[in-house]
Amino acid sequence: MSEQQRIRPGEVAVETVPAADAWLRFIGHIHTPWQRREDCPRQGNVEGPACQIEVFEPWDQALSGLQPQSTLEVLYWLDQSRRDLVLQGPKGRDQPLGTFALRSPVRPNPIGSSLVRLIGIDGRMLRVRGLDCLDGTPLLDLKPARSAFIAQHDRLSG
Amino acid sequence: MSEQQRIRPGEVAVETVPAADAWLRFIGHIHTPWQRREDCPRQGNVEGPACQIEVFEPWDQALSGLQPQSTLEVLYWLDQSRRDLVLQGPKGRDQPLGTFALRSPVRPNPIGSSLVRLIGIDGRMLRVRGLDCLDGTPLLDLKPARSAFIAQHDRLSG
Repeated sequence: MSEQQRIRPGEVAVETVPAADAWLRFIGHIHTPWQRREDCPRQGNVEGPACQIEVFEPWDQALSGLQPQSTLEVLYWLDQSRRDLVLQGPKGRDQPLGTFALRSPVRPNPIGSSLVRLIGIDGRMLRVRGLDCLDGTPLLDLKPARSAFIAQHDRLSG
Repeated sequence: MSEQQRIRPGEVAVETVPAADAWLRFIGHIHTPWQRREDCPRQGNVEGPACQIEVFEPWDQALSGLQPQSTLEVLYWLDQSRRDLVLQGPKGRDQPLGTFALRSPVRPNPIGSSLVRLIGIDGRMLRVRGLDCLDGTPLLDLKPARSAFIAQHDRLSG
């Protein structure tokens, strides 16, 4: 059983019927330096290594209008993650916490989100900084991170 | 054909095989005041109306440890959206733009993301402000929006 699959003391898994509510389409792959979960940084850093996002045809047509140096929200599928834990005990924590109180990759729908800086576009390959996921992670979506998104966040933090 | 399904001049749809790469599980429903897409605000506002997020069993167990007044990232499934447009012409724009340069609900994987303030928890019902989606939208995930998330954003904007 891999590290991803092991349950730690205090963690709780639930029994569920198979997920069957909607289908995802993988629209690309993310290329990063990290081959194992334990190698991944705890979170992306825009001063970290450049990574590549490869967008599959025909979705590369949807890159039109992306601005270099802009900030993008990237959604991806954490395909190595189990999906049945409701309480988790991440390393370094005494007490397990609910999955929704954590940004762990283990979730009922293992969708990861990162904010990245777009540093270059070459056809259907994007160069970005700020990711923290495994090499080969399937891509789900790219959206501009609007300035309004930041402004809202500032209000929330104020 | 509904407003959601109509193609405007300059928009481009692609032909694709059905999405079949991974299954999602709907883990709740979002209750908002908005019954039609044209009623939804252009984006969520944490001073807007309170909305309710209903989390289905057994996933309510995963709410343990959520902090009222904290900021959450909410992911949801835009189940009314077409998925095949690569160029889109939102109202008020002259030129169509690529889907990935827009935060339109029309996307190859129509996953919406919002940052909300958690204003109350009552069992498996959350009260939040900051959503902009239709009433009845299926819930996919809840994650804390870490302060590091803001800090990273500030770096990106600096």
